[in-house]
Amino acid sequence: MRDSHDIRLAVIPGDGIGSEVVAEGLKVLEVLGLKVETTTYALGAAHYHATGETLPDETLAELRGYDAILLGAVGHPSVPPGVLERELLLKLRFELDHYVNLRPVKLFPGVETPLGKARPEDIDMVVVREGTEGPYAGAGGVMRRGTSQEIATQESLNTAFGVERVVRYAFDKAMTRPRRKLTLVHKTNVLTYAGDLWARIVERVSAEYPEITTDYCHVDAASMFFVTDPQRFDVIVTDNLFGDILTDLGAAVAGGIGLAASGNVNPAAPGSASWAPSMFEPVHGSAPDIAGQEKADPTAAILSVAMMLDHLGLADESARIEQAVAVDLVERQVDWVSRTTREIGDDITARVAG
Amino acid sequence: MRDSHDIRLAVIPGDGIGSEVVAEGLKVLEVLGLKVETTTYALGAAHYHATGETLPDETLAELRGYDAILLGAVGHPSVPPGVLERELLLKLRFELDHYVNLRPVKLFPGVETPLGKARPEDIDMVVVREGTEGPYAGAGGVMRRGTSQEIATQESLNTAFGVERVVRYAFDKAMTRPRRKLTLVHKTNVLTYAGDLWARIVERVSAEYPEITTDYCHVDAASMFFVTDPQRFDVIVTDNLFGDILTDLGAAVAGGIGLAASGNVNPAAPGSASWAPSMFEPVHGSAPDIAGQEKADPTAAILSVAMMLDHLGLADESARIEQAVAVDLVERQVDWVSRTTREIGDDITARVAG
Ligand SMILES: CC(C)[C@H](C(=O)O)[C@@H](O)C(=O)O
Ligand SMILES: CC(C)[C@H](C(=O)O)[C@@H](O)C(=O)O
Repeated sequence: MRDSHDIRLAVIPGDGIGSEVVAEGLKVLEVLGLKVETTTYALGAAHYHATGETLPDETLAELRGYDAILLGAVGHPSVPPGVLERELLLKLRFELDHYVNLRPVKLFPGVETPLGKARPEDIDMVVVREGTEGPYAGAGGVMRRGTSQEIATQESLNTAFGVERVVRYAFDKAMTRPRRKLTLVHKTNVLTYAGDLWARIVERVSAEYPEITTDYCHVDAASMFFVTDPQRFDVIVTDNLFGDILTDLGAAVAGGIGLAASGNVNPAAPGSASWAPSMFEPVHGSAPDIAGQEKADPTAAILSVAMMLDHLGLADESARIEQAVAVDLVERQVDWVSRTTREIGDDITARVAG
Repeated sequence: MRDSHDIRLAVIPGDGIGSEVVAEGLKVLEVLGLKVETTTYALGAAHYHATGETLPDETLAELRGYDAILLGAVGHPSVPPGVLERELLLKLRFELDHYVNLRPVKLFPGVETPLGKARPEDIDMVVVREGTEGPYAGAGGVMRRGTSQEIATQESLNTAFGVERVVRYAFDKAMTRPRRKLTLVHKTNVLTYAGDLWARIVERVSAEYPEITTDYCHVDAASMFFVTDPQRFDVIVTDNLFGDILTDLGAAVAGGIGLAASGNVNPAAPGSASWAPSMFEPVHGSAPDIAGQEKADPTAAILSVAMMLDHLGLADESARIEQAVAVDLVERQVDWVSRTTREIGDDITARVAG
């Protein structure tokens, strides 16, 4: 896709452990022999306190010029809840039209899972979470705030346009996987308007993919099956909020939030009018309680770099990182020693290089 | 509370396995030596197909006259999604003002959990799920249905009145438990209007309960902690939809949906203007695939009867059932034999009687 394999990369380390884990992701990226140019953007809580800004318009415009964005984590207790999330993280997802929030849930061999009996072949799915609408639209309001007559509303906005594009992406993704199964997760029996839209679109598009087995699961039952029967799932397509919940749960059953990578993907062809850079980030948060202590696991950030390379058409380089991580994860169980963030990054980097 | 301990009970067996499990619940109830008068209401899919009715007004009016309602399960694939749920089950919850949906998540000794390392003392919480508002209000709409310009909305309605009463109930519940801990679960960083209302009310009411330790957890993180660190929770208070998801997940980690009981509680004092009968039901659904085969586990229905008795002020009788179930659950692991629905009911009944 990009001749000479150059990547122009914007890096947003963010808050808390974000900068620690991103540093290790970049370390791995460096030894692949690619020409990578990185520019760091100091957005997040510190920038907000210093300037009152979350994501200035000029910065957003600049970010559009990169091939991809690597983000650490955003959020700090010193900032009121929702400010950095809505005005920085979600704003990036919405403005750059990251309508696919891609979150693999995969148990690597050697990794311990809280599910006593699960084996790696039991947990291997991809959650395709819608990223630009639903309950995340920010619609809603409050009246008579602080009184006993207060009402607060929160509105989920769903469009045929928005649902169909992510559903199509999910069907295409299912075509690349051996099991070729797609499950819609929603709550059609209660959220009848939105659920009906999702269900009809999945049904209609499924006719174009006769090779794919399609089924449906309520979100409450799905969260149960993540624990009792994760084999049931191959590719899941779901709305923004259900995807948020299920992928944290997925990270837990697949060995922990320290390993879960994600891509906020704009799947448009580079050069087309709707293209914008995709953004890759670990699923975990900024974990201010352990920040600065080199205790965080950088694996999720490193796997996010692998997802980024795959998205950029560098499948071989992506696979090299995934393989190095897979070996490191097996080794961890065999010869367990406590390592710092940096040491884990160094070890994985050495495997990628060697 | 009721002199001569008479209970006038309305029974709604419902669909699928509903009638099978309810029969066992009633069998246990019969041997307690209480004077119980039961009236059965044949509501559900069959009634809907025969008459087009879900919950006629006169039936609803009649139901208001009972001391309590015991419900099996509602829902069948032959009825379009949402019809029985919204017009029967949720209508009962809303009309009878069941603003507390009480769902214990408790690992009984001897019960196998999918969490390899969890012990009974690790999983012992009560989820207080709001039952009459939030995303379940049914608000929303659709425009240009079936076209590429379709939009579908779904609105969560939250009131200070509705949130405060369930939050107060949850604080009172936490006072009855040794750990005295209450966790609000929400998604305040994204659902900022509703989340702000919930967070402010919890903070304000907490001042009246200095003995209670109060904390907050995002719903995505909470679903992770259900699997990795369930000890973290004692009493959870949360909105209708988050509670729906978390309690199915809770049932899964506590040994399965066959054991999870629930109460749709109207906590008003009997005789007061806002009183209406509370309704008790297993968390599981109607499972049409195994209906009529005596394969369903009636334990959740039996434990729902125990919750009902406790609600009606019959704490001793409630405890007798819980103890009989606890013994049966230990025995199951020791001498495992496959039993039918009826056999499990018979065994638990014999223990209660003996
Ligand atoms: C930080 C928060 C806004 C975000 C989300 O809810 O999407 C996070 O939980 C995630 O999953 O990336
Ligand atoms: C059947 C459905 C409407 C119901 C709900 O969502 O509340 C069920 O899942 C439950 O938890 O009791």
